[in-house]
Order: sequence, then structure tokens, then C-alpha cells
Amino acid sequence: MARIAVVAGDGIGPEVVAQARKVIDAVLPGVEATEYDLGAARYHRTGEVLPDSVLAELAGHDAILLGAVGDPSVPPGVLERGLLLKLRFAFDQYVNLRPSRLWPGVSGPLASVKPGEVDLVVVREGTEGLYTGAGGALHRNTPAEVATEESLNTRHGVERVIRDAFARAERRERRKVTLVHKTNVLTHAGSLWARAFEAVAAEHPDVATEYQHVDAAAMFLVTQPQRYDVVVTDNLFGDILTDIAAAVTGGIGLAASGCINPEGRYPSMFEPVHGSAPDIAGQGVADPVAAVLSAALLLDQLGHAEAAARVTAAVGTELANRAPNVPLRTAEVGDRLAAYAVA
Amino acid sequence: MARIAVVAGDGIGPEVVAQARKVIDAVLPGVEATEYDLGAARYHRTGEVLPDSVLAELAGHDAILLGAVGDPSVPPGVLERGLLLKLRFAFDQYVNLRPSRLWPGVSGPLASVKPGEVDLVVVREGTEGLYTGAGGALHRNTPAEVATEESLNTRHGVERVIRDAFARAERRERRKVTLVHKTNVLTHAGSLWARAFEAVAAEHPDVATEYQHVDAAAMFLVTQPQRYDVVVTDNLFGDILTDIAAAVTGGIGLAASGCINPEGRYPSMFEPVHGSAPDIAGQGVADPVAAVLSAALLLDQLGHAEAAARVTAAVGTELANRAPNVPLRTAEVGDRLAAYAVA
Ligand SMILES: CC(C)[C@H](C(=O)O)[C@@H](O)C(=O)O
Ligand SMILES: CC(C)[C@H](C(=O)O)[C@@H](O)C(=O)O
Repeated sequence: MARIAVVAGDGIGPEVVAQARKVIDAVLPGVEATEYDLGAARYHRTGEVLPDSVLAELAGHDAILLGAVGDPSVPPGVLERGLLLKLRFAFDQYVNLRPSRLWPGVSGPLASVKPGEVDLVVVREGTEGLYTGAGGALHRNTPAEVATEESLNTRHGVERVIRDAFARAERRERRKVTLVHKTNVLTHAGSLWARAFEAVAAEHPDVATEYQHVDAAAMFLVTQPQRYDVVVTDNLFGDILTDIAAAVTGGIGLAASGCINPEGRYPSMFEPVHGSAPDIAGQGVADPVAAVLSAALLLDQLGHAEAAARVTAAVGTELANRAPNVPLRTAEVGDRLAAYAVA
Repeated sequence: MARIAVVAGDGIGPEVVAQARKVIDAVLPGVEATEYDLGAARYHRTGEVLPDSVLAELAGHDAILLGAVGDPSVPPGVLERGLLLKLRFAFDQYVNLRPSRLWPGVSGPLASVKPGEVDLVVVREGTEGLYTGAGGALHRNTPAEVATEESLNTRHGVERVIRDAFARAERRERRKVTLVHKTNVLTHAGSLWARAFEAVAAEHPDVATEYQHVDAAAMFLVTQPQRYDVVVTDNLFGDILTDIAAAVTGGIGLAASGCINPEGRYPSMFEPVHGSAPDIAGQGVADPVAAVLSAALLLDQLGHAEAAARVTAAVGTELANRAPNVPLRTAEVGDRLAAYAVA
């Protein structure tokens, strides 16, 4: 039976993770879950972000379910670099999977897009690009200061994430992959991405392909999000585009994500895109849907496709039946989702 | 009297530039304009992109008015790096100014945003960041290939564009500047930007400030574009965010931009954000509004604030009076705008 590590984290993290576990337990009884205390609270209490011993323990699990970490009281970068990015890199989670659907029952911000019309997934590279920390500064705090950030891209790293995107497109109805980059300006990395994309595309003649510059893609995500099926892109572009995709499909409150090591050599990690929302923490009013959808991605990754599909369908039922303007209770939503998923 | 260089360019460029000149001539008779033939057509005819002699001649003008350059037949990067970016760097156009307004009469894609509510300007850095061309590749076309892109940021370059943003905010009603970066991941450059921002903000106690990560800003531009007044950001983030801002205010068809050297040591360049649109070129149906708004930015930069305001107001009149679904004729729109501007 699957062994998962649970990092509930800060703010609303524990509240939404509790619902995700409720739903997992309903559709796949017997999953063994171990809780790990990481995040802003632990950092303040102990000064520790991610001790090596904890990293080693996490490595022994099949997957990690994360709620949310962070708090305004922690200096920027500490938990991001020390925890979230550290896990992505240490566990070689090179596929950052971010599906966006405009669910029936959810009203998005776009006047011309109807529920059900948007169903895309961004396959964001997770271990390279501008996220490696490469770069530095000279003459800090003087008028002569120079600071650099380096985007590192390897054929190895680029090709494997593009392969994953095509494999996912093969399993979808529209079978289309859009590469997003900025080849007209970032010519070195752009050329590598474009050539790797072409090579992998040639092995998939049944998958339609297109290329867009990141600025155009950002625009089309707003004006025609319906046009996308699978989008593959680099780490930073993916960070930005997935927030736009979330915004046009009802907000990051509904957005799930997986940081995946597809080969399963290391555990993959699943987390809602939203943060710890300290303003509403502890009140039992956070929407657990993004955490539950992240649990569905987790189940799918661990080979329980049918259980995953039931959880996703349960979310569809929940969202389609929500009365507008009725405040939600986190635990009640979790109860309903668990019930729908096994109905 | 002002001497401007006109680069009409490719596709619809000449058609829209003709209207911009019509309007300039109406509000400021006597401007001396010299045409320069640059773009895809010249590249195909002569192999030249921007000869040094032309660059030197352009340098002798007060400003450059550009229509659009580019064509799918030109390999990516040739005109971008060889012409547009070359001019931005050669003429030290470190302020890339991109206003976005949701004009009364224009229906944007967002259901909850009413015309008149969005009025923001992005001050995008234009001479640093990931746009310098720094970077390279090793082991090209082998499985061992590595490609890098380097973001270069100097205190000099960052501080001057932030100063420009605050100066613009001082002249606006809401007096607010939002810094957008990704300080939690791009810690080297992010720290430089954040410290420079803080230092300049301290000199402007009457200007409100906020900071947002680029992914959050991309999202809020879709969900609450009303919240922004002046946004200052780096070259690549600005590229992406301005296309989102254009999308939510009716599309790049209405978006104007200026690449500005504020000190006037070199000519500034003004151009619509839209491209050469080869599909509709030559038919006289392109909307010249973005080119005309770019001309207004040009007039303002050259010290003709009153003429600029009249052109901007003319665009407001035109857009407010457009009947929906009536096809427009480029030259007629230009005639109307010129007439409104002097009425
Ligand atoms: C918190 C931050 C490091 C992270 C990222 O930039 O990847 C977040 O924005 C995300 O998208 O998961
Ligand atoms: C054409 C390209 C080089 C340019 C840029 O990236 O700056 C364009 O997208 C723009 O926004 O002006």
C-alpha cells in the first residue's frame, strides 16, 4: 500500500490537507500517511527549514502531499529556496504539472469563455532555467553594483520534459502541444528548446504542435484560453503562465499542481497552488478543492488512475452544485467530496 | 521644429503610420519627417537589417516613429535583435513606456471590469536583464548540449528606470508605483531591484508603493487590473506583463509604446505594440489607433504635452463613437482623428 508523507504546513495548509486525506482515505483505504512538520511555524520555533534527516525520510515515501508553507513573517526566499525549490531539485521533480479547467458552475473572469471550454495542462520544467540559483552580485550596496541571474538549460533536461508533454498529449483528446519560449530574444536557450521540441515532435506525428512567444501566449491565455491543450515551457515562463491560466479559470483557489519525478526514482510532490492565506487561517472557511485536486494528481501518479478520476469527478459535482454566495465550510466540503467520490 | 525619422516598415506598418503622420501634421504643423526603409522588405531585397550609416542618420533626429517590422519569411531573431533591440540599446532607450487604458466604447474580455476603470502604465526597463544577448551554448546539437541566458542588472540601470517610474507617478492622480519582480527566486537581481526601489521610494514619500511577484502580478492583471497605476519592472517581465495589460484592455491592436531615452541624448522611438499583420496588409482595414496613440507619446516626449493630450482625447472620441461591428477603413479613421484633434 502507498506510503505518503504529509506536510500540512502553515495557515490554511492543515485545514485543506485534512480534507485531501479524507478523500484519499475514502477512495483508497489503507494509504499510510506520516506527518512532517515543516514551514514557517517550524522555522520560527527551531530555525530549521529542511533538515537533512527529514529530507532523507521524505525520500523513503511514495509521494508527498503538501498543504501550504509560508507566512509574511518569514524573509522572502527562505522557505522558497530552502524548502519548496530544494525538494524539487533534490527529488529531480522535473515535471511541474499544472492543469487548468474552467469547471461548470465556476464563473471565470472572461466574458466570452463558457464553463467546460477550457481544459489545458501546463507542463512546466522544474529543475533548470532561472531557478537554479546561478548568478551573483558584485559591489553590493554601492552605485557600481551588478547582479546576474543565469538561466541554465541542458538538452537532457529540456528533452525529458518535452517528452513528458508529448506523452501526456497522446493520452488526451485533442493531442496538441504548444511550446512557449522567447526564441526571438533568448536565442541560445530558445534554439535548444526549439530543436529538442522538433526532434520529439518528429517521433509523434499524431500530435499537433505549435510554437508561441511567451508574451503572445500570455495574451492568448486571456483572449482564447480554449485554444490550448498541453503547453510545455521553461521554469520561469511556466510559473507566470500557470498563474494566468489559474486566473482565467476561477483563481488559484481551485488550482492543483504536481512536482513530478516521472520515473518514480524520487517521490513526487503534490500541492495546491494557493498559499497559506494567513488572513483566513483557522476559521474553517478555506476551499479545499485545490488540495483535493492535488490529491487526485497524486493518486494518478501512483498508478491509481481510477481512484484519481473519481476524485476529479467528485470535484466536478461539488462545483456544479455550489449555490452562489453561500459561504463554504472546509470540513463540510471535504465530507461531500469524499461522499461523491465513493458514490 | 521637430525632426522625426519615420520607419513605416512592413505589412500594415505604412498604412497606420500614414494616419499617425496625418494626426501629427494636424496638431503640430511643420514637423519635418524623413522616411527610412527598414524591415523585412529591405532585408529580403538587400540582406541589410540596419546599416551603420542609417543608424547614424537616425541618431540625428529628435524621435523615431515606427509602424511595424517583420514578416514570417524572416528567420526569428534577425529583425528583433538586428533592428528593434539594436535601436533600443544603441539609443540607450532604457524606459519602455506602455500605457494601458480600457477606453469607454471598447469592450475588453473581462466581465467585471468597466470601461474607464483601467488606466495603468508599465515602465519596463529596456536596456538590461535577459535582453542583452549574454549567454551561449556548448556542445551544440549533441546530447550534452548546454545553453545559458544571462540576466544582467546594474544599480545604474535599475535605479534610473525606477526613478523614471516615480517621476511619472508624481504626475498622475493615484501616485502609486508597483514593483514587479521575482525576489523569492531571483534573489541576486531581485535584491538589487528591491533595494534600489526602496531607496528611490524614500525620496518620494507622497507616492504609495507595493511589491508583487511576477506570477501574482500576471494573475492580478487579469482579475483586478484596476488596482495598478504605475508598474515598474525588468525587461522580460515587462514584455509579458504589457501583453497581458493590452489583452485585458481590448488587445494589442490598441496598445501604444515608447522606447524612451528620457534625457534626450538619443532619439526615442514610438511604435504600436501590434505587428505587421501580413494577413490584412494592403487592404486599408487596419486600425491606426495604436499608431496614433504612439504618436501622442512621441509628441509628449518632445515637449508638446498639449498637442499630445489633444491626440489622446481624439482617440477617446473615436473609440466612444464606434458602432459595433461596422468595419473600419484605416484612412477614414485617420481623417476623423485628425479632425477631432483640432476641433
Ligand atoms: C513559491 C515559488 C518559489 C514558486 C515558484 O516560483 O515556482 C511558486 O510561485 C509556484 O509557482 O510554485
Ligand atoms: C519583438 C520583440 C523583440 C519585442 C520584445 O520582446 O521586446 C516585442 O515583443 C515587444 O514587446 O516590443
